[in-house]
Amino acid sequence: MPKRSAGMRDVARRAEVSLSTVSRVLRGAPGVAPEVRERVRAAADELSYAVSRNASGLVTGRTCRVAVVVPSLRPWFFGAVASGLGHALHAAGLDMLVHQADGAEDWTRDLPLPHNSDALVAVALQVTEEQYAHLGDLAGPVVLAGEELPGRASVFIDDRAGTAGATHHLLNLGHTRIAYIGTHTEHGPSRSSAARMAGYHDAMAEAGAEPWTVSKPPGPDGGELAVGELLSHQSPPTAVLAESDDVALGAYRALRRSGVRVPEAISLMGFDDHDASAALDLTTVDQAPEALGAAAGQLAADLVHGRRPSDTRIELPVQIVPRQSTAAPQERRTSP
Amino acid sequence: MPKRSAGMRDVARRAEVSLSTVSRVLRGAPGVAPEVRERVRAAADELSYAVSRNASGLVTGRTCRVAVVVPSLRPWFFGAVASGLGHALHAAGLDMLVHQADGAEDWTRDLPLPHNSDALVAVALQVTEEQYAHLGDLAGPVVLAGEELPGRASVFIDDRAGTAGATHHLLNLGHTRIAYIGTHTEHGPSRSSAARMAGYHDAMAEAGAEPWTVSKPPGPDGGELAVGELLSHQSPPTAVLAESDDVALGAYRALRRSGVRVPEAISLMGFDDHDASAALDLTTVDQAPEALGAAAGQLAADLVHGRRPSDTRIELPVQIVPRQSTAAPQERRTSP
Repeated sequence: MPKRSAGMRDVARRAEVSLSTVSRVLRGAPGVAPEVRERVRAAADELSYAVSRNASGLVTGRTCRVAVVVPSLRPWFFGAVASGLGHALHAAGLDMLVHQADGAEDWTRDLPLPHNSDALVAVALQVTEEQYAHLGDLAGPVVLAGEELPGRASVFIDDRAGTAGATHHLLNLGHTRIAYIGTHTEHGPSRSSAARMAGYHDAMAEAGAEPWTVSKPPGPDGGELAVGELLSHQSPPTAVLAESDDVALGAYRALRRSGVRVPEAISLMGFDDHDASAALDLTTVDQAPEALGAAAGQLAADLVHGRRPSDTRIELPVQIVPRQSTAAPQERRTSP
Repeated sequence: MPKRSAGMRDVARRAEVSLSTVSRVLRGAPGVAPEVRERVRAAADELSYAVSRNASGLVTGRTCRVAVVVPSLRPWFFGAVASGLGHALHAAGLDMLVHQADGAEDWTRDLPLPHNSDALVAVALQVTEEQYAHLGDLAGPVVLAGEELPGRASVFIDDRAGTAGATHHLLNLGHTRIAYIGTHTEHGPSRSSAARMAGYHDAMAEAGAEPWTVSKPPGPDGGELAVGELLSHQSPPTAVLAESDDVALGAYRALRRSGVRVPEAISLMGFDDHDASAALDLTTVDQAPEALGAAAGQLAADLVHGRRPSDTRIELPVQIVPRQSTAAPQERRTSP
C-alpha cells in the first residue's frame, strides 16, 4: 500500500527548490537540470514521498498519460512505431497506455478510455469521421499514425508514391514483366494496401508496361501462395514487388524452396524495411516506423500541452533501400 | 474537456442493471454478458457518461493499471512479450502502461511509478534484490518475465537446458565441430547469455567434444562478425549455434555473402523463433514470447486482485523447431 508520510512541500524544503520544480521532477517533465533532478529525487526517496498522478490529475485535469492503440504489438512494425511513440511521450513527461485492437470490428467501442488519458494515438487503424469524433469526446485530442483522415491530425507516408518509386526501381533495372503481390482480408484491402497497389499501377502505366497483380491474405503465407501462383505461369515474371516485407519473406521462402535464385532468376523487392530484410539482403522501401511513432508522439504531446503545432498533418518521406535481391534481368523477355 | 452530465446511477437506471454491473462494464472487467455490456455502453453513450479511473482509483485504492517495463519495444521479441501481457491484463480488466528502459544504468530510478499502477512487470531486465524491494514499495507486486530472482515472482524459461538441447540436436546429426556464438555488452554477458553458453558447454562436455565459442556484441552485426572470425580458421566448424535468432540472422547473411551454403557446408541454428526464422528455414528453439507475456500478465493480475496464485515461479517449456538450416555434416572432420 502507498506510503504517504511526507508532502511535496517537505521534499521542496529538503531539496531546497521550489514546489513547482519538485512537481516537474516527479512528473518526469523536461527542463530541469540533471543535478537538481537528482537532488529532488534523493529528497523524495529519503522522505519516502511519492507523487500520485491520480491525485494530481484531479487537480490539474490532466492524467499525464496518452493512450496508444495498435492493431497488435506482435508484428515488429507496430512495436517499432510504439517504441518511437514511447520515447517522444516520455520526453514530454507523458506515460503511454497501450491497447491492442486485435481485429475487433469496432475497436473504438472497446477501449476503457474515458478520463484515462489526455490524448489518443491510433496506429495503422482506419477511423471514420464519426469514430474520430467519438474518440475525441472520450479521450481528448486524437492523432492518427500511419493512416489519415482529411483535415485531421495525422502522421503518414505516401504509400502510393512509395510503391511507384519501387516499381520505377525495377523498371530502371530493365524489368518489364513485374508482378505485384497485394493483400486483402475478408473486409477487402486496407487503405494502405489499396494505395500501394495504385502506386504500382501508376508506374507501370507510365512505362507502358502490362500490370500483373495477385492479391492474397496478409503475411508471409500470402507471399508464399502468390509465388506458387506466379511460378505456375508459362512465362513467369522477372521481378516481384511485394506490398510488404512480411509478404516478401514468404515469397522469398517459396522461391528458395522452388530452387529459383534471387536475384539471378527473379528479382524480389519488399516494402517496410523489416529487421530481417538486411539479413536477407532484400531490397525494400524504408518507411522508418520509429520516426513515424516519434512524430505522432510529439504531435500528441503538443496538443496535450496546448501548444499549437505548426502542422497537424505530417507526411514523412520514404526511401528506397537497394540491396542484393534486385538486379537487371538475365535475359529480357517480351510480354506475351 | 471531460463531460460529466450524468452519474453512474443514471446509467444503471437507464440500462436496468445494478450499479456494480455498470462499474464492471465501464472498467472493462470480464464476466458480463455481451448483451448486457452493450446495453450499459449504449446507456452511457446516450447520457454522455464516462467513468474516470482516476476518480474511482481514489475510492478503491486501485488504478486498474499495470506498469510494464521492457528494454525497448523495438526488437520484435519484446513486442511479442508485451502483446501477450496486454491480452492477459486486458482480460483481467487492467490497462497496460509501457515504459522502455533503453539501456539506462538504473532504470528502476527513472520510472514515474508511484501510485500510477497496481503492479509492475519487468521484462528481460535484471533486477537486484534491493531494486526489487524498491520497485515493490513504489509499484505494488513485482513480476519478472524472462528473468528470475530467487524466491520472487517470475516467469522464465530454462535457457541453459534450451541451448543444451540445441547442442544435442547438432551432435545427434553427427556434428562435433560445433561453434557457439554468444554475446556480451560493455557490462559483460547478460544472465541469459551466460546461461545459454553454459548449456552449450554442458552438452559438449557430456559428448566429449571440444567447445569452440566466440562472443560478440548482440544483434545481427555480432553474428556477422562471428562468422567472419569462424571462417578464417583453417578448419571451420561444420555447425554453428547462435545465442539468438537475431545473431543467427547476421551469421546467415555473412555465410551467404561468403558463398557458404547452409546447411550443405555449415549447419546453422538459432534460439527464439524470430518471425523471419520460418521464412529463412532456420532451425531454432521456440520460447514462445507471447505465452511468456501472457503468463506474467496473469500472475500480475492474480497478485493485484489478491488471488493467491498456486505458484509465483513459473518455468515455461522451450521446444526445438527443426527446419532446413541444419543437416548431417557432408564429411566428418576431426578436431585439430
